[in-house]
Amino acid sequence: MAGAIKVHGIPTSTATGRVLAALYEKGLQFELVNVKLHEGEHKREPFLSLNPFGQVPAFQDGDLNLFESRAITQYISGNYASNGTQLIPQDPKKAAVVLTWIEVESHHFDPVAMKLVFELCLKPVFGWGDADPAVVAQSETELGKVLDIYEKRLSESKYLGGESFSLADLHHLPVLGYLLATQSKKLFESRPHVNAWVADIIARPSWAKVLELRK
Amino acid sequence: MAGAIKVHGIPTSTATGRVLAALYEKGLQFELVNVKLHEGEHKREPFLSLNPFGQVPAFQDGDLNLFESRAITQYISGNYASNGTQLIPQDPKKAAVVLTWIEVESHHFDPVAMKLVFELCLKPVFGWGDADPAVVAQSETELGKVLDIYEKRLSESKYLGGESFSLADLHHLPVLGYLLATQSKKLFESRPHVNAWVADIIARPSWAKVLELRK
Repeated sequence: MAGAIKVHGIPTSTATGRVLAALYEKGLQFELVNVKLHEGEHKREPFLSLNPFGQVPAFQDGDLNLFESRAITQYISGNYASNGTQLIPQDPKKAAVVLTWIEVESHHFDPVAMKLVFELCLKPVFGWGDADPAVVAQSETELGKVLDIYEKRLSESKYLGGESFSLADLHHLPVLGYLLATQSKKLFESRPHVNAWVADIIARPSWAKVLELRK
Repeated sequence: MAGAIKVHGIPTSTATGRVLAALYEKGLQFELVNVKLHEGEHKREPFLSLNPFGQVPAFQDGDLNLFESRAITQYISGNYASNGTQLIPQDPKKAAVVLTWIEVESHHFDPVAMKLVFELCLKPVFGWGDADPAVVAQSETELGKVLDIYEKRLSESKYLGGESFSLADLHHLPVLGYLLATQSKKLFESRPHVNAWVADIIARPSWAKVLELRK
């Protein structure tokens, strides 16, 4: 049912961006409902009825209400399995490998990468002061260790979850989009397999459409 | 194929405990391969070939190798859907709600609850010094806010993911098992719906079997 899907969020949010990229991969129609974060709309009703934790995005598909970006993308992938790109394999064992790398992004990549996004991207844009060099150095060291594991993994399979692009790759796009515009891009560029993987996934038309939404 | 499943970990680890509880819920045979963490076995080969991040548990089912506890439990739930307890609903919309609350446990409950486990359980056991009262107070305040949202949710549905016990509940068991033996149990006991939910899920035979493994 076209028009039944609503995403409540903003396209510059990394979590919202994950959901938008998944919807574009699937070629699904949706409405983006802008949430005025600067006015605190996400911390009061009616938004809190959509997500009691007060974070974007929230998601509606008809009478279904979801939150947490990685749950939403998995719902989109599973419920619209026959639309557009297959983002989670049908085979349960292959799906489990994709899920493992979805968890890796969530627990190993994102927490440290978001520290760098905060220091190098958000602080300057919002006037929150200068980047803390000690935090940046420590975070780059930690992210480098994660990317060493990615480098080995990507020397064995074309994508993190296997031979095909999947949600495990897609979930990285919004944070990569930010970090490639900072000094931390060296962490990706200095690792050949990681560098080729980043170039591949960041060039997906779905991500270009998310960037279009920001204009 | 009985005997094909191997869990590499230790039953006192919260992440290993999640996987063990899921296997018991499904009534599956498995072999627990003890990893000598105190000797650093998880930080060198052959363990690193099972999990390059050097954390327990790692999991094998025949030739399939997985890591990340919440990916393993979802594989067990999906691949052995017809065994034992149904831990993820068949209906994609109901499954998506369960997945949302799996993400809530992972991103909102676990990080703050594990700070309390560290201060109140691990420090005394391993002789790492006294609990830091400031960290405990701050973490209890933060966990209380999460549990306020759980209290509302559990006043609307019997379990976090809906009317049936699911992975979204099960994933809390190992951390609850620790915190109920500490001062922080008051956070659960003071919220009636949370208290009833905790009493219900902690009494599951699957959890008793995990505790048996620790003896």
